[in-house]
Amino acid sequence: MQVGILGAGQLGRMLALAGYPLGARFTFLDRKPGGPAAQVGDIIEGGFDEPARIAEVAKKVDVLTFDVENVPASAVREAGVEHLCRPGLAALEAAQDRHAEKQCFQGLDIPVPPYRTVDSREDLDAAIEAVGLPAVLKRRRLGYDGRGQRFIHRREEAGEALEELGGGDLTLEAFVPFDREVSMIGVRTPAGETAFYPLSENRHDQGILRVSQAPARGAATAGVARDYVERLLHHLDYVGVLAVEFFEAGGELLANEMAPRVHNSGHWTIEGAVTSQFENHIRAVLDLPLGLTEPTGAAAMANLIGTMPATRDLLAIPGLHLHAYGKSERPGRKLGHATLVARDEAGLEARLNRLLELAWRGHADD
Amino acid sequence: MQVGILGAGQLGRMLALAGYPLGARFTFLDRKPGGPAAQVGDIIEGGFDEPARIAEVAKKVDVLTFDVENVPASAVREAGVEHLCRPGLAALEAAQDRHAEKQCFQGLDIPVPPYRTVDSREDLDAAIEAVGLPAVLKRRRLGYDGRGQRFIHRREEAGEALEELGGGDLTLEAFVPFDREVSMIGVRTPAGETAFYPLSENRHDQGILRVSQAPARGAATAGVARDYVERLLHHLDYVGVLAVEFFEAGGELLANEMAPRVHNSGHWTIEGAVTSQFENHIRAVLDLPLGLTEPTGAAAMANLIGTMPATRDLLAIPGLHLHAYGKSERPGRKLGHATLVARDEAGLEARLNRLLELAWRGHADD
Repeated sequence: MQVGILGAGQLGRMLALAGYPLGARFTFLDRKPGGPAAQVGDIIEGGFDEPARIAEVAKKVDVLTFDVENVPASAVREAGVEHLCRPGLAALEAAQDRHAEKQCFQGLDIPVPPYRTVDSREDLDAAIEAVGLPAVLKRRRLGYDGRGQRFIHRREEAGEALEELGGGDLTLEAFVPFDREVSMIGVRTPAGETAFYPLSENRHDQGILRVSQAPARGAATAGVARDYVERLLHHLDYVGVLAVEFFEAGGELLANEMAPRVHNSGHWTIEGAVTSQFENHIRAVLDLPLGLTEPTGAAAMANLIGTMPATRDLLAIPGLHLHAYGKSERPGRKLGHATLVARDEAGLEARLNRLLELAWRGHADD
Repeated sequence: MQVGILGAGQLGRMLALAGYPLGARFTFLDRKPGGPAAQVGDIIEGGFDEPARIAEVAKKVDVLTFDVENVPASAVREAGVEHLCRPGLAALEAAQDRHAEKQCFQGLDIPVPPYRTVDSREDLDAAIEAVGLPAVLKRRRLGYDGRGQRFIHRREEAGEALEELGGGDLTLEAFVPFDREVSMIGVRTPAGETAFYPLSENRHDQGILRVSQAPARGAATAGVARDYVERLLHHLDYVGVLAVEFFEAGGELLANEMAPRVHNSGHWTIEGAVTSQFENHIRAVLDLPLGLTEPTGAAAMANLIGTMPATRDLLAIPGLHLHAYGKSERPGRKLGHATLVARDEAGLEARLNRLLELAWRGHADD
């Protein structure tokens, strides 16, 4: 069982660490030979836009999957290996373009915040008229972790925001005064077997995920989120893990975006669920039975960003599980995460506060 | 944090898989370049008896540890890298020789079965006189998984058994009609911090471990076992995981042997304890705080020996955790293991029976 992964970041690394026990072997494609995943598998150096390199990986493997969603579908098609891709390119393409993504959501009756596409100043003025202010101007493609976005609070900011984001190929989305952000992670096999994790509640700062807790408190919306993700999985004939982020406002969910891959808001599943999102993704793409997604307790995950707290300090927190990605420090960079699991949420509190203290101190200079 | 491991078998593989999340990197020494651990780290090809190769590994790492206990201490000393070894060579040497091992146990008031050393036919006759029959004639060195042992039921078998095992450098040990076999796994840091796992109950067949369950039922002896292992850890100024196997007979424990490394009877800790024996060994040898050793439930581990059941069949058992070692099939060879965890032992039963059915079918032809 040979698995090819496009991208050798921390997601690929954790997929491999979860996949070796199943007997799988891993080959990664990445421009950087020293990435987090390259430490735990073979690497072929090349870009995601190089069909020859993609074909070289494909020749070595039984199935191709993704550490990143921004692989150009055209390069995969040109390499002639579309049939090996799990999830398929249709899912990838739907997630790569904010407009296509929202159309996909709307076609399945999954509510989204009001939005318009923007390709000119006229479009932007009309969009502001339609969705109101404040709103968020976003690049349609290649945005992640809050990059490629600008808040617009007042009309006067519109021109500058438009210029900064390249003048077109954008969306303007109404800012939703949400109560909280949640995400639902589902997984589907080629035969259509599905499984869903408990809803996760996520706290972001400057567009980057900081903390996830699961199962989310008072999760009356969990069933709704699950239903939405199930619709997407079947509609996209999806294989593997799919994550969807929602805004929760007044007891309703609005889909924000989806990621056709394992997701940062599901890292808690390594210790907080019977089978992790990483193992279930590998099980799914290899057409193996899915593992149980039941929670093992109340879990909290904190990202370690920018600078890494001392390993010794982190591991001194009883029951803490560290996941270092083997990266060098850089402001704003995700270097690792740490997870705590307790019988219930109250059992997390003191240790989570200590963890956040260490994690915050780490990226105070972001 | 660079860790060198002498031996690239499944123990080294699982040490690496547990160590990457802590930020560690791994280099292995082994004659075979394609072993289970070589898939997940760098490998230097060479024998454990080659000081030059040991030195080559040592140059790349901060600490040296062991996948196998039969590394000749003399080769490590000749390589001039004794100071990097965790555990130290004294512990290795005590575990390599059944006589030294039993002297070590006795010196710490840890009971052992009656035994004598045997270097000739006269020794053997005297030993039979002293310990009685039935008894087990064992090579003093390089035995594992029941190899290098012969049962002696009647005096007439003595000559043949002696010849088969090389005529000398042996021990004769009284056969203990034990109620069950158990093992205790402890871990110690350089500063003397210790932690202990729940007692494991082990079932062997033809000298090979088949099933471990933990925490062991009615473990009145767990405290005694823990005390014995604690004595050993401190006496040997031990760093890392130490496993000791005991015979339990009439509520008393007799030490059978110790392994100065992570141990097959502790594989259940990957999912059945908050921190696995593999992670705690890496934490200890890197002088990091130990993780919690509390059980997460009732765990059962079954070895997969000889032939591998179909991955699909294994993973169809709800909640099963598979650990394939990436080895080719061969009669009697440990190819992997599978673990189940439940709230209590009753919750394991049906699934464990199904697992054993698959595992048994696998090695019916051993």
